[in-house]
Amino acid sequence: MTERRHDREFVRTFFTSPTAVEGEDDSAKMLRSAAQLRGMQAPDVWVPDNEDATAPSMRDEGAENIIEVVSEHGADFPGEIHPRIVWHRDSPTTRYQGFQHMLEIADPERGAIEHIDGFVVPEVGDIDDWKKADEFFTIVENEHGLEAGSIAMSVIIESGQAELAMGTLREEMGKPTNNLERLFLLVDGEVDYTKDMRAITPTGELPPWPELRHNTSRGASAAGLIAVDGPYDDIRDVEGYHERMTENQAKGMLGIWSLTPGQVVEANTSPLPPKTGSWLLDIDGQQIELESEDGVEVYDGDRLSLEATGDGYELRIGGDTRELDEDELREELLDITSYVPSMDDIVDSMEEFEAAKEAGRGAIAMEQSATLRIGGTELSISKDRMWDEATYQAAMTPISLFQDVYENRPDQHEELNERYGASVVSRAMEVGL
Amino acid sequence: MTERRHDREFVRTFFTSPTAVEGEDDSAKMLRSAAQLRGMQAPDVWVPDNEDATAPSMRDEGAENIIEVVSEHGADFPGEIHPRIVWHRDSPTTRYQGFQHMLEIADPERGAIEHIDGFVVPEVGDIDDWKKADEFFTIVENEHGLEAGSIAMSVIIESGQAELAMGTLREEMGKPTNNLERLFLLVDGEVDYTKDMRAITPTGELPPWPELRHNTSRGASAAGLIAVDGPYDDIRDVEGYHERMTENQAKGMLGIWSLTPGQVVEANTSPLPPKTGSWLLDIDGQQIELESEDGVEVYDGDRLSLEATGDGYELRIGGDTRELDEDELREELLDITSYVPSMDDIVDSMEEFEAAKEAGRGAIAMEQSATLRIGGTELSISKDRMWDEATYQAAMTPISLFQDVYENRPDQHEELNERYGASVVSRAMEVGL
Amino acid sequence: MTERRHDREFVRTFFTSPTAVEGEDDSAKMLRSAAQLRGMQAPDVWVPDNEDATAPSMRDEGAENIIEVVSEHGADFPGEIHPRIVWHRDSPTTRYQGFQHMLEIADPERGAIEHIDGFVVPEVGDIDDWKKADEFFTIVENEHGLEAGSIAMSVIIESGQAELAMGTLREEMGKPTNNLERLFLLVDGEVDYTKDMRAITPTGELPPWPELRHNTSRGASAAGLIAVDGPYDDIRDVEGYHERMTENQAKGMLGIWSLTPGQVVEANTSPLPPKTGSWLLDIDGQQIELESEDGVEVYDGDRLSLEATGDGYELRIGGDTRELDEDELREELLDITSYVPSMDDIVDSMEEFEAAKEAGRGAIAMEQSATLRIGGTELSISKDRMWDEATYQAAMTPISLFQDVYENRPDQHEELNERYGASVVSRAMEVGL
Repeated sequence: MTERRHDREFVRTFFTSPTAVEGEDDSAKMLRSAAQLRGMQAPDVWVPDNEDATAPSMRDEGAENIIEVVSEHGADFPGEIHPRIVWHRDSPTTRYQGFQHMLEIADPERGAIEHIDGFVVPEVGDIDDWKKADEFFTIVENEHGLEAGSIAMSVIIESGQAELAMGTLREEMGKPTNNLERLFLLVDGEVDYTKDMRAITPTGELPPWPELRHNTSRGASAAGLIAVDGPYDDIRDVEGYHERMTENQAKGMLGIWSLTPGQVVEANTSPLPPKTGSWLLDIDGQQIELESEDGVEVYDGDRLSLEATGDGYELRIGGDTRELDEDELREELLDITSYVPSMDDIVDSMEEFEAAKEAGRGAIAMEQSATLRIGGTELSISKDRMWDEATYQAAMTPISLFQDVYENRPDQHEELNERYGASVVSRAMEVGL
Repeated sequence: MTERRHDREFVRTFFTSPTAVEGEDDSAKMLRSAAQLRGMQAPDVWVPDNEDATAPSMRDEGAENIIEVVSEHGADFPGEIHPRIVWHRDSPTTRYQGFQHMLEIADPERGAIEHIDGFVVPEVGDIDDWKKADEFFTIVENEHGLEAGSIAMSVIIESGQAELAMGTLREEMGKPTNNLERLFLLVDGEVDYTKDMRAITPTGELPPWPELRHNTSRGASAAGLIAVDGPYDDIRDVEGYHERMTENQAKGMLGIWSLTPGQVVEANTSPLPPKTGSWLLDIDGQQIELESEDGVEVYDGDRLSLEATGDGYELRIGGDTRELDEDELREELLDITSYVPSMDDIVDSMEEFEAAKEAGRGAIAMEQSATLRIGGTELSISKDRMWDEATYQAAMTPISLFQDVYENRPDQHEELNERYGASVVSRAMEVGL
Repeated sequence: MTERRHDREFVRTFFTSPTAVEGEDDSAKMLRSAAQLRGMQAPDVWVPDNEDATAPSMRDEGAENIIEVVSEHGADFPGEIHPRIVWHRDSPTTRYQGFQHMLEIADPERGAIEHIDGFVVPEVGDIDDWKKADEFFTIVENEHGLEAGSIAMSVIIESGQAELAMGTLREEMGKPTNNLERLFLLVDGEVDYTKDMRAITPTGELPPWPELRHNTSRGASAAGLIAVDGPYDDIRDVEGYHERMTENQAKGMLGIWSLTPGQVVEANTSPLPPKTGSWLLDIDGQQIELESEDGVEVYDGDRLSLEATGDGYELRIGGDTRELDEDELREELLDITSYVPSMDDIVDSMEEFEAAKEAGRGAIAMEQSATLRIGGTELSISKDRMWDEATYQAAMTPISLFQDVYENRPDQHEELNERYGASVVSRAMEVGL
């Protein structure tokens, strides 16, 4: 197994806070309030951001604020703490400033470092630039008598050269002259990446960069790291944020940046299986969720209609109308329906497969049934899916994520138990072990 | 030219069979029936699958079954035979078991190896892991007095690290301490890949992984290998299987896994040019095939309508209606129509270009004409396409595939002659040589 | 900063001309007319094409024609001149021929080389093949007493192995035994790439190859080079050419091949910001530009309708009708509208942000307002967008491109001033410096 060297195997949320805001009575106000987030509002990784979120002139004060707030609140913070320092592949001045801030913040006498899990390094370049940053971490550890490799390093991928560097991590991390095993998160930074790639869109919105996200996820997979997507700027647009996360999850990128506690709640929840299952209808490529009414799954939109005729059915999808007998209709509906399993469903299937395996069977069929109502017409359908070891292993991902969350985030137990019920939670904690 | 070192330059089908099924009188029953497939039902590469398709407890028996069935039926099997052994980048136990099974199966005294073309190695990791497998092949060859490099090695790409390894094959294959020149197929395994990448989809269906398929195809191109896509689970869904193959072909991935003889037929046929040409209408991004009636190409759906008015035409596409004169209408229809050439058409065009080249011309225009009937209105259109050397070379791919199939699969001659007619077949075997 | 070593930092257009056409009184006729293009019809990079555009038998004459036409017209040509020579990774004969043509063309006594900026090398293979070409450039420079590295080298990416090579350029370009710092353009060649990848499409049209274009753009970003897309064959299809360019620009690929002076005009214009801003409506994934009438943005299609009811509004999008109060309606319209800023708007925003930064503020909100009229109903909306340093830097790309064009192409000043007005042009030349 590609070794994972950190406490968390999954990170859902990467929440940044400005370290020093000018013109406030207390320049550390935002840090202080973020440090006191709990439960679903608290991120898996909190990032006091001494880079882009903080004005250049305020960054020395920002480093001091990090020390002050983390030494006071760090012990009680439920997530990990990874401040972002300044860094730039093209500027030795910036790199040296980042090094000095790390040296300062990591001083054990200041009381913050014992609560800090690592630092985030933005604007890295090729792999040799990553090694420069790693060397500063090593020197900081050595100067302060901390264990070598104990401070995690996360990087922001925001240049073409850094994207390419992710292809070499697996072989570079074993080399004797670096401590790159400290690497933890690979975080995409699409705004600066767009600038580095010199991309242009008519409205100025960010390009979707699907290949970058794939390569980040793959780099994480190959090196035992965790992939995190960049910020989603349009804070009002909750639906868009969820669509982005669903896309990311299909790429193996399970974490995302959050800019507000509201986004943290959405992003902490998104990769967890739903509480209740639901049926989807795929009409011309659009997924429509059916309403569940007394155990019947109901569609009453107008893109699809179904009517019983004397000897069969008339099914209309968009502009196409077809006459079908009952078997043909069932076949057709099976083609355009799919089921989104609940946590309970997933745990059930996994338990069932585990029992079958114990009994010496390598593959079993899992059945999912429903009664659909379209217009006024009802019909029952039933879908089979073959489960073998590989299906089982792939279905394990959301459960492993849940287990990682439940073990590491006691502050979310109440909300998770409320969401799923205690019995589902306790069964989910047992499967696959 | 990147050298191709194997008999087959194209592989359309990769068909797996369980090697030993528990609870049957004859545990080798499925092997035995697969070994007797012929014609379009027989795959280009048949894979007695001693890994995921066979229960772990049955794999020793599976290795014996492979020996028995292949030594009996192998001489007559029309495709190549590449058993899949067990392997895992993270488990030396599994790797050693795979090595032992290979040693056993490859023993010339058992009579199977003379009919076996290679082995398939699943779950490979980074390039050094591929080299471990290659070394076992070398030892097996040496122990049994077989020629070094004579046993082909195919791998299943089902991890991020293996995806990255494909980027280095070209330089690794030349190195003196390995025999990686034995590599043959690069086969994607999306179920385990999804697990390795830790991807999640709401319904549990596999993500599409377009970048993986591109990278596999590119890796094959750079190293003279053949790219094959993974299994398509929904056996009922023939249309979906074809859509997947069309997508793959546009990526240069011309082969695909088949789970049933029915899928083998579809996949053997899919990359071959059609018997008859057809016209497509592109309406809002959807391709609709026109019906050919007595030499007229007819559309009678309701997304598009065309009516002659006093002095021109009224064309409605979806909700948009426009008044056009005849030239404008022809221009518009040219924009939204395209032609899918038949084997005969392709051979014609190539012969025509070859003759033009002989006569010293570097580029010629190929014309394609049709009479369209939309609603009741008819109009003739004619499309020109410039052919130069590059067009000719690119058009050669389906023909080269056909030639490779025709040379290597005499058992399919009857079906191919029936499909295209003997005269088209014999002309297709001559062009481009 | 990844160093850029050439005069041009942006190249919009790569225009090829046959070097010798058989059967004409003057075989150099097309070269001669291309050499006299000026203004928006003249490309940033002009490529006398002694490879695919010219018949093999005419290429020696083609080399002579290049010398003759460039020595006569080169001094006055407003763009750069980069002839394409023959080359093939698989043919030493072809490579030697390309070398001989370069030696000939670069002879200072022939008077052409002083106007030639570099050569274009097609059909390159892996990085060692690029080094062979580079070595011939070095020998040519040395033989003719030209400065080492003074002749730029551009390559056509038309094989999987060349695509992979782009991942190593950054590290290879620094090595002491080559002069790869001479690299200038990375140009995709999709026709031959399709052949190399052995891809098939039903109609024979080219696959879209999004990953190739991403990797070319990334390779350019990492090595300080410029990415250019391949030819768009359907010369009639101006709309399709623009769609392709918009897609490319979102990938950071700002240049494209042009086959005619008409395509040059389109491609020179496409990456420049528009003269006037415009509002877009996003209806089911389709972007529709609103008509501006006396300061009101008007939609009068039938996919969307809006009516005031007694106490609110009825909004219909496609088949879905909803009752909304004014706030809900505004929210909804904000979700589906976006603004395409003009050059003037971009310069305004940048100046505003620069002033804010001077005053010590790190982020400001930019507002964009409009009155929409849908059906007969009017409503005013206003969008805010936060600008910080990163937004500012990313918005800089089209401005930098404009500045590069304006500095290097005095022959386009008149057309650019006409397009934007002299005052916008002069402000655009000042921002961001």
